Amino acid sequence: MTVHLDGMASARLADPTETANDIPHAENGNKPAKDVKYRKVKEEIIHVGTESKFHVTPVSEEEHELDANRVPSRPTPELKFDIDDEGDTLSNHNSITALLSSKFRDIQKRLKQYGIESPRFRKRLVSRWESLNYDVCENVLYLKDQEKYKSKRWVTLRWLSKWLVMFFIGIGTALLAAAIHFVVEKLAHFKFDLIKHYFDDCAKNNCLYQPALIWMGINLVITVAGASLVTFLQPMAAGSGIPYIKAYLNGVKIPGLLTFRAFVAKTLGVVLSILGGLACGKEGPMAHSGSIIAAGLGRGRINFCGGKSISFYSVFRNDHEIRDFVAGGAASGVSSAFGAPIGGTLFSLEEAASFWNQDLTWRVFFSSMVACFATNFLISAINGDPTKLTDPGLIRFNAFKFDLKFDLIEIPFFIFMAVVGGLSGALFVVMNYKLTVFRKRYLNKNWIKVVEAGLVAVVSAAVAFGLLVGINDCTDKAPFDSHAVTAAVYCTDKKHNSLSTLFLTTPEGCLKALLHDPFESHNPASLVAFVLIFFVLGVWTYGLSVSSGVFIPSLAIGAAWGRLIGIGVAYMMPDNPNLAANSTLIKQLDVGKFALIGAASQLGGILRTTISLTVIIVECTDDISFGLPIMIVLMISKWVGDFITTGLYDMNVEVMGIPTLPFESPPLCEDLRASDVMSAPLATFKTKEKVETVYEMLKDETFCGFPVIEDDSLTTGKGKLKGLILRSQLLVLLKKKIFCPEGQVPPRNITIKDFRDFYPVYLKVSEIDLSDEEKSYVIDLKPYYNPSPYTVEKKFSLSRVFNLFRGLGLRHLIVTDEKNVPVGIVTRKDLAKFRVGSKRGLVKIEQLKIQDK
Amino acid sequence: MTVHLDGMASARLADPTETANDIPHAENGNKPAKDVKYRKVKEEIIHVGTESKFHVTPVSEEEHELDANRVPSRPTPELKFDIDDEGDTLSNHNSITALLSSKFRDIQKRLKQYGIESPRFRKRLVSRWESLNYDVCENVLYLKDQEKYKSKRWVTLRWLSKWLVMFFIGIGTALLAAAIHFVVEKLAHFKFDLIKHYFDDCAKNNCLYQPALIWMGINLVITVAGASLVTFLQPMAAGSGIPYIKAYLNGVKIPGLLTFRAFVAKTLGVVLSILGGLACGKEGPMAHSGSIIAAGLGRGRINFCGGKSISFYSVFRNDHEIRDFVAGGAASGVSSAFGAPIGGTLFSLEEAASFWNQDLTWRVFFSSMVACFATNFLISAINGDPTKLTDPGLIRFNAFKFDLKFDLIEIPFFIFMAVVGGLSGALFVVMNYKLTVFRKRYLNKNWIKVVEAGLVAVVSAAVAFGLLVGINDCTDKAPFDSHAVTAAVYCTDKKHNSLSTLFLTTPEGCLKALLHDPFESHNPASLVAFVLIFFVLGVWTYGLSVSSGVFIPSLAIGAAWGRLIGIGVAYMMPDNPNLAANSTLIKQLDVGKFALIGAASQLGGILRTTISLTVIIVECTDDISFGLPIMIVLMISKWVGDFITTGLYDMNVEVMGIPTLPFESPPLCEDLRASDVMSAPLATFKTKEKVETVYEMLKDETFCGFPVIEDDSLTTGKGKLKGLILRSQLLVLLKKKIFCPEGQVPPRNITIKDFRDFYPVYLKVSEIDLSDEEKSYVIDLKPYYNPSPYTVEKKFSLSRVFNLFRGLGLRHLIVTDEKNVPVGIVTRKDLAKFRVGSKRGLVKIEQLKIQDK
Repeated sequence: MTVHLDGMASARLADPTETANDIPHAENGNKPAKDVKYRKVKEEIIHVGTESKFHVTPVSEEEHELDANRVPSRPTPELKFDIDDEGDTLSNHNSITALLSSKFRDIQKRLKQYGIESPRFRKRLVSRWESLNYDVCENVLYLKDQEKYKSKRWVTLRWLSKWLVMFFIGIGTALLAAAIHFVVEKLAHFKFDLIKHYFDDCAKNNCLYQPALIWMGINLVITVAGASLVTFLQPMAAGSGIPYIKAYLNGVKIPGLLTFRAFVAKTLGVVLSILGGLACGKEGPMAHSGSIIAAGLGRGRINFCGGKSISFYSVFRNDHEIRDFVAGGAASGVSSAFGAPIGGTLFSLEEAASFWNQDLTWRVFFSSMVACFATNFLISAINGDPTKLTDPGLIRFNAFKFDLKFDLIEIPFFIFMAVVGGLSGALFVVMNYKLTVFRKRYLNKNWIKVVEAGLVAVVSAAVAFGLLVGINDCTDKAPFDSHAVTAAVYCTDKKHNSLSTLFLTTPEGCLKALLHDPFESHNPASLVAFVLIFFVLGVWTYGLSVSSGVFIPSLAIGAAWGRLIGIGVAYMMPDNPNLAANSTLIKQLDVGKFALIGAASQLGGILRTTISLTVIIVECTDDISFGLPIMIVLMISKWVGDFITTGLYDMNVEVMGIPTLPFESPPLCEDLRASDVMSAPLATFKTKEKVETVYEMLKDETFCGFPVIEDDSLTTGKGKLKGLILRSQLLVLLKKKIFCPEGQVPPRNITIKDFRDFYPVYLKVSEIDLSDEEKSYVIDLKPYYNPSPYTVEKKFSLSRVFNLFRGLGLRHLIVTDEKNVPVGIVTRKDLAKFRVGSKRGLVKIEQLKIQDK
Repeated sequence: MTVHLDGMASARLADPTETANDIPHAENGNKPAKDVKYRKVKEEIIHVGTESKFHVTPVSEEEHELDANRVPSRPTPELKFDIDDEGDTLSNHNSITALLSSKFRDIQKRLKQYGIESPRFRKRLVSRWESLNYDVCENVLYLKDQEKYKSKRWVTLRWLSKWLVMFFIGIGTALLAAAIHFVVEKLAHFKFDLIKHYFDDCAKNNCLYQPALIWMGINLVITVAGASLVTFLQPMAAGSGIPYIKAYLNGVKIPGLLTFRAFVAKTLGVVLSILGGLACGKEGPMAHSGSIIAAGLGRGRINFCGGKSISFYSVFRNDHEIRDFVAGGAASGVSSAFGAPIGGTLFSLEEAASFWNQDLTWRVFFSSMVACFATNFLISAINGDPTKLTDPGLIRFNAFKFDLKFDLIEIPFFIFMAVVGGLSGALFVVMNYKLTVFRKRYLNKNWIKVVEAGLVAVVSAAVAFGLLVGINDCTDKAPFDSHAVTAAVYCTDKKHNSLSTLFLTTPEGCLKALLHDPFESHNPASLVAFVLIFFVLGVWTYGLSVSSGVFIPSLAIGAAWGRLIGIGVAYMMPDNPNLAANSTLIKQLDVGKFALIGAASQLGGILRTTISLTVIIVECTDDISFGLPIMIVLMISKWVGDFITTGLYDMNVEVMGIPTLPFESPPLCEDLRASDVMSAPLATFKTKEKVETVYEMLKDETFCGFPVIEDDSLTTGKGKLKGLILRSQLLVLLKKKIFCPEGQVPPRNITIKDFRDFYPVYLKVSEIDLSDEEKSYVIDLKPYYNPSPYTVEKKFSLSRVFNLFRGLGLRHLIVTDEKNVPVGIVTRKDLAKFRVGSKRGLVKIEQLKIQDK
């Protein structure tokens, strides 16, 4: 369905269901007319169905006047509603680079004509994602609750308790990080020692099938265990969790993300994934684990299986407070993973920019510093001396033997590497996208997911085995890590196979070897083989139903080809004293430096580093002077990558159809009005409503918020706006039976705590039991609805609506006419669906589809 | 005047002028009733005068209902309007720490009973400060202008040009930084070499009056020149400029701040201040200089004296775009001063958190990286080899001979130092505050300001001379800086007076000496003397009418007492291998480390580091592992300092009465409603208005924005809201004579460019010339007003109004009644005047006064 519309006046008419401003609601009195078919709205969103029976409101005189108020001589056909059915390219979220790269996408489209069209998992939003309630509902109950905090003692206590929770979030995250680190290091060393033992024995005795089988067997068993845990306990624990955490911080409710089950699956799962030999890291998942710890501490309740729970405190149980704690948890996770307290703070805050405030920033920074410090202490203790605070994170790139220095002449090389990183990163994203789509289509059964994970683990082992046996890259250089497992395989004279330092270790150890091993440790052939293999394994692993991070494999791939380029540069320019003096030491420095730049480029190309990721890498490197080339490289690789595709995390978010809001509305969308954007018609309540009406409405409709209108609106079904009430509030009122026969005084024995008890998993309509007598009672909504919901008039432009929605972190924005009568409601998906695009050089606005799955 | 009110209903009655919702406006037809005395509103703000003649609207039934909707059983007397006349303590901006520290302030108050009360320059806002127009006015002209950008080419061009401007901002700032660095270093070295020459000669020949006179003479002449430049050319160039820049980024218009004159006074002034021997640095002013460069490049116009100007482009001439560029400029300035691109970016963005978006963040980061890189290149070139990129900023603390390591056992010492820094920082702020108030009262003539600056310069020289002669601290340790000027004075045996490395240099050189000089260079007595002298000079210098930064003197004071503590620790614990091994090298490291921690503590205590300042210091130190203790120290010194006073910059902002908005509304202010907060009555226009009416209104009123109401409101003076028009727009319309006799078609030969031509210095009413015939014409406001201004209903709570205002960067927020009729307007000062406080354990809301000066 491609609708091209000329100008706004016709836009309003062309798709009547999109813009019908009249609400044929409750026309026959108190009870909404059941025979009027509302378009079903699932989780705040409208399905544009064809069955709609609404009449089209003729454009009123007033609206004509509105149009007259616009540009008089508009060349109309430039702005188009264009629901593009064809494109399934990885279009960019960032509006301007999307425009710039559209030429590239034209080529892609033309190529696609000759191939098979891939299925569509982009340019759509999935309806099941709800928004968080970041906006505080200031009803009477809330004001009453606030009364008791109006003493200095309470304000102080409340303030201190927030800091205290942040402190424990930091400590908890650090304990977890140290525990994972300890377990993984010990067990991985044991595993690879065993394999090395068989390798070295069997190379002489011709029984190499033994290490191969053992290796593949261990990988298979452990990975299948990890994959089962994730798949059957909590599928939300799959992958790194960072895309979900980012979406949550953006304001989307992600069911299951912050539960105890997800915690178990995530933390145990990541240990098993790494021991299972998958190409993944334990750093990304730390952000998710930290967030779960934060949410748990914030809620103050432990849920056991079977629905039982112990509740400690409930004062922070609302989306606003929990989201703030989760920001601290995510920051602590990143901080303890990378030893990057500033980067972690930025990571949390940049996604939630609209909710920034200095006090929260300090609390997040505090928790992230506590996490970093405690991790430092614990890992130093594991390494022998807790007072030598030298290990602030799980992974660091700071072991270069010399100060990292750079020269102006090296900058062009770095830029070239950044371009390579951007291109190969984009390739990584495209390949992983195709694979993700394939998985969503054909590999969507749970057992198949587990089998696939097992297969990847076995192939990983087999390929590594093949390389070790096939490439005989012998070296006598001692590896950087004195504890590294080195296997000789076919090497003699106390030499060892250099690939063994890359494969007989965790991906982290492999990264460290690539960065810090002496100059002549790895020969170019084995590096090339490593890059190719690890790139494919990386693509294949990311998106498996296992708990796994993509940071470390990305960095390792980049470090390998960066090292390759470093060696090349050293040989190409033997006379340049800076690049390749005769001293092997300088070469060694250079090769490590190029490996580091390669790693940064590759990561930038895959993830499209934001400011926070830049800071994380710089903090990891522990050298700010060298931060400058790293920043340049990250920026260029982002630009190059953005020109082709979105980043990996954004791709994930898009494939899931999560309606994250960008930072700004699409450019040049001033012509679109609130009335063009909003969901209509509305379901509304009056301030006093019959219980049956409420019950039936909740059963029939899937709206999450209902405008409350004036009582004297019996005849028209319209009325001045009084407030907004949420589905979750109504369900609690019905469940607690806060209603009475008409004329009597309604019971008011309900407090804000009763609502909190149901947080965050609210009731379902099916759990409400009402007798026929009760259904005839009346419910007084006045003390419960939010009496001052934010509203806009229907002639507001999209960009203004967007700014309001994004700036305040809203869930519902009511659209009213000039008389303050609600005519529609704007939700997250109504805004997230607009994207900018271009066609034949003209800028146009695209609308994403909204689907059920 | 202390007004205690019980509950809200009475609050509405108690101060009738504050809450009168009825607008007795235009009651007798088209022309506003001239005999009705409007309360004069100067620059958006209402003076609560006693002469008001307004009738009090009786609380209507509807409002009673509104109250019924509130908490039924409110214990009323807890929330009070309290215009506190007594307190003039340095109350804290941050609401919670303000509460916590109020006990301390009680003590302060009691002490004050016995002393003389100091004048009141706090708890007030000054009415002359206006807000920036960050919100885009989407009128017909704007939409028309946007039309032409709806091609891909234009979007791309616009986007690229923004990046290009950011690039040149970075380059320009770097060029300036390098030039200042070069000039200051050369001339200062020349000056101190001369003085040293006379010192060493005269110590033998007993003519020490010669160097004293020469030193004082040079200081006097140069400082008087610098002070005259600032005082007479542009007083806004005084001080570091950072408080103003922060206020500007917060959304306040600061006239004269971003002009060419300010640029000249700032840059030349800072060179003269440092050469004049004042205790100040050149780093702070860089943020201001960078901002001016950015504003100039953004406006694309050069203004010459006498009102002539050359205009290059006008497309960015609005507050929104210029503010974005200034963010880049301030970041570039900080970045080239400290070599801290990340810290610079955060510096710009944290103050403007509500306007964050990723694209702007990247542009700011880009410009700040360009600045850092270019500075690095230029300073490396000045130092001899442009390809050795090792000097990314003007000041760095990274010259420690060893890696900075820290041990758990040192943390308690660091915490102790942080507390000392917080306390002494607070003392610095209090002393400087008293001095500032004294200056505002008694030293407010221009010539006195210049004389005071000269006096400080002479005293600085005299005191330094006295110390050099009086304390005979001879050492044979070579100073860290091999180019340092060392004078022997009375020392013999090729020894030199160690104080000469501290005083015969710029404050920057002095800081470097304190951080990096060998262990035994400075004896404790001379350090104590240095701390005392420099502390007093620092307090005296900051706030003089010269261009000067406070970073470097703060750091130097802290480094000196930090070094003192380092020496003490080394002697106290001779057995601890970490703290004081016998090796002098380790002692040297330790003493430098303690000096660094002391410097950070002192800076944190004076400025109350935000996240950005923390990052700046860490980037300056170039060592992230050691960043952790620095962060801890900065945080603790902030807390300790906040407990007593505000920070120095906030103190400045408060003394100036600039209405900056905090990040969050005061806590527990849900009881205050928009109708309690807003400025009323309103001056409104109809969509078609007589020229005379408009002209007279502009002449009589000082409002900056006028709601436009429906035309059919002849009888009531009220009408439904149609839009908002600005004073500046009306003035342009009158000047360009966009009106016509009634009934004719109005001329529309005006474009958005005509409005931009007047940016940023708009017309005054006195510049408008109208004939009597023209005054009878009609002006059609429809194409010019903003048709969708943000509004709130009058029952909205203060916290919701605040969030909307802050989140969207508004200048005017119209308050309407339920029928969409405007009843008042909320501006920045209406919100900024509310502070939280406590009395007898209860939380209360304070209102600041609004004064003319």
